[in-house]
Amino acid sequence: MKLLIENVNTLTMNDENMFRENISVGVEENRIVFVGEKPKDFVADKTIDGKGKLLMPGLVNAHTHMPMTLFRNYADDLPFHEWLFERVMPIEEQLDSESVYWGTLLALIESIKSGVTCFNDMYFFLEDMIKACSKVGIRSVLGRGLSGDKDSDTSKEDEVREIYKKYNNAENGRITFFVAPHAPYTCDDEYLKRSKKLADELNVGLHIHLSESKREVDESIEQFGMTPIKRVAELGLLDGHVVAAHCVHVTEEDLDIMKEKNVHVLHNPGSNMKLANGFAPVKEMLDRGINVALGTDGAASNNNLNMFEEINYAGLLHKATHQDPLAVSTIEALKMATINGAKALNLKDVGMIKEGYKADMILLDIEKPHFYPRNRLISSLVYSAQASDVETVICDGRILMENHKISFADEMEVLIETEKQLKRLVSQM
Amino acid sequence: MKLLIENVNTLTMNDENMFRENISVGVEENRIVFVGEKPKDFVADKTIDGKGKLLMPGLVNAHTHMPMTLFRNYADDLPFHEWLFERVMPIEEQLDSESVYWGTLLALIESIKSGVTCFNDMYFFLEDMIKACSKVGIRSVLGRGLSGDKDSDTSKEDEVREIYKKYNNAENGRITFFVAPHAPYTCDDEYLKRSKKLADELNVGLHIHLSESKREVDESIEQFGMTPIKRVAELGLLDGHVVAAHCVHVTEEDLDIMKEKNVHVLHNPGSNMKLANGFAPVKEMLDRGINVALGTDGAASNNNLNMFEEINYAGLLHKATHQDPLAVSTIEALKMATINGAKALNLKDVGMIKEGYKADMILLDIEKPHFYPRNRLISSLVYSAQASDVETVICDGRILMENHKISFADEMEVLIETEKQLKRLVSQM
Repeated sequence: MKLLIENVNTLTMNDENMFRENISVGVEENRIVFVGEKPKDFVADKTIDGKGKLLMPGLVNAHTHMPMTLFRNYADDLPFHEWLFERVMPIEEQLDSESVYWGTLLALIESIKSGVTCFNDMYFFLEDMIKACSKVGIRSVLGRGLSGDKDSDTSKEDEVREIYKKYNNAENGRITFFVAPHAPYTCDDEYLKRSKKLADELNVGLHIHLSESKREVDESIEQFGMTPIKRVAELGLLDGHVVAAHCVHVTEEDLDIMKEKNVHVLHNPGSNMKLANGFAPVKEMLDRGINVALGTDGAASNNNLNMFEEINYAGLLHKATHQDPLAVSTIEALKMATINGAKALNLKDVGMIKEGYKADMILLDIEKPHFYPRNRLISSLVYSAQASDVETVICDGRILMENHKISFADEMEVLIETEKQLKRLVSQM
Repeated sequence: MKLLIENVNTLTMNDENMFRENISVGVEENRIVFVGEKPKDFVADKTIDGKGKLLMPGLVNAHTHMPMTLFRNYADDLPFHEWLFERVMPIEEQLDSESVYWGTLLALIESIKSGVTCFNDMYFFLEDMIKACSKVGIRSVLGRGLSGDKDSDTSKEDEVREIYKKYNNAENGRITFFVAPHAPYTCDDEYLKRSKKLADELNVGLHIHLSESKREVDESIEQFGMTPIKRVAELGLLDGHVVAAHCVHVTEEDLDIMKEKNVHVLHNPGSNMKLANGFAPVKEMLDRGINVALGTDGAASNNNLNMFEEINYAGLLHKATHQDPLAVSTIEALKMATINGAKALNLKDVGMIKEGYKADMILLDIEKPHFYPRNRLISSLVYSAQASDVETVICDGRILMENHKISFADEMEVLIETEKQLKRLVSQM
């Protein structure tokens, strides 16, 4: 399949040529084959007229828990520990194959409709999540959430090994894995080290929540005499490819460790506000050269999977916390949601519109009042765009949504089914 | 004209019965005549099926500068004083009747499409703004921006008197006025007092920017030995109906003054972040019982007029600044955008879905993934809704938008014309 997008204003996210007006972009199979002028011998099977639209890389949601979309608006405005341990975990215990499948499908429809073509997840029932991902055609990095202690048996690690063997690089390479120890407060030292060993064995990255709440950090200092980040560093967990979600309550020393160990930070501004954890020091991270990617977190703590909202937060919040209008630039906020996310997920040919890169791209309809007059389209994407401006979504060279219509599922059927699934789970409690 | 909305989930914003499932709401002329069950003798001229939709009061954008929509994305990521004095004011000097008309029309299309049925504005060329408001059918409180000193002639005040005489309560009462001295840093004591005198003469409220930036407050203390709020209080400006935009950098004493004088605060979280002014202490205001309304500010500092975004900020930011998940509740955030805004604008029968109130209402399409499963629709409106979910808009009993289609203008023509207007202004500089 050869796809051509013509006459399109393009945000490439390529530093060498960030914004290009009125160009053509060609796709062959799952790769971008040219950006600029169409070669004479390129004969497209399908052509999309890009006039009045904006082309940019598909968004990378670098930290989420897709099936938790079932719990959207289920437990709002509660302190973090109460939210997690008293509300979320009890209903999570009811989850099963069927509910996880439908919850993931709902989440993926929301994701595609808002321009997300790739995500990084930590959850359970991975085979059911993979079933939903395969149906949709989205790119994903999946991690089976691990928590436990020295007495825990190896069943979860065995499960990870088995799923990895069965599915790694499945779906044309769109499915890959990280090992995902949940957090330093839900794993003991021994179990954390076992997770690290497993990541080394499979030669994959490590995905963990770090220093999300102040209470987590206070309790770590009380119990271990050091911050969670220092603790995992001393355990050797950061010696390898590590993506760390949140990193809100971090010390200068933590930041130095993260830089030294090349930890990728997964910034979740919406979730951090919603759960009242505060603001991550993103400017300080960027100033140190730490790679910062962007995520929504699960819909139970957001309560949507709208990455344009997160881009907007990333572009605004740090200006306010630092009273510095240059704290995080528009380009930096957009990088967090695209190329920085791909880097964090170890996807070396994703996140830019560049020859040879995977064809993960989205088209926005910019013939709308909130994009006019067109003074600076890059600013519009951070400060004015809505998720609903996403009109067409291409992932791995395949069109998953065209003119707002998804190709892979009956949307209304999925909405109704998730409603049923949640009711079933609640009735079981 | 009798309008009936049937089978609709309704957020009334009425404390006595906040959320009602599957009811009917009737409108006769420009007023709501029943909320709940349709009286037998009510025969509608038009019926809207509310199934799969949510009805709520139209949003009140309590602080904006509509024509500045022309300057959307025109000057981004600059310090406040540079932004205002070096970038915005020079191009504002180029404005004329024609550009203000088109800029306002663009802003009003964006507003209607995102569910705003009422706004409070401070700007110039009010007759051209009124022309646009009349075309659209939106409700507005308008103030001609006043700045000057003891040597300023009375021409602007004369203009205010004249426009007030000509247009107050025009358009079925949809057009009313406030007197709008710009700010304590652009008016001297004498001129501020003249503004207050004018407000008293016309018996209208006063609309002013107060304590927006730290620099404004620092300079006020240096020059006058007191904060801007204390200064205007001592000048007698707060002895009457006053709406004060921003109030970001306020002292405890300022808050006490605002409470004592019943000042209505117009909170603009998006603009305050964008211009790096910080976060207004909204929780502290609410705790004192100060009425807080919500606004977008102008599109030059936001960069849109999306009130659902501001509701989302109001619901999230203060949780994070206070690390308290209960800092501002979902209902409080929604009140700021509806009933609190109406109170601030002295509109006593606007902002609720209640018998006898003006029929300013919006219908959202909630058959979308980000509203599912439907655990708590009120949370969805704060944490998940997008402006584009607004499907139908009724203002003063008239349908201004139905199924996303506006009735009062050719949308594309307006977009193109504003582009031309901006180019013309820039070329004149």
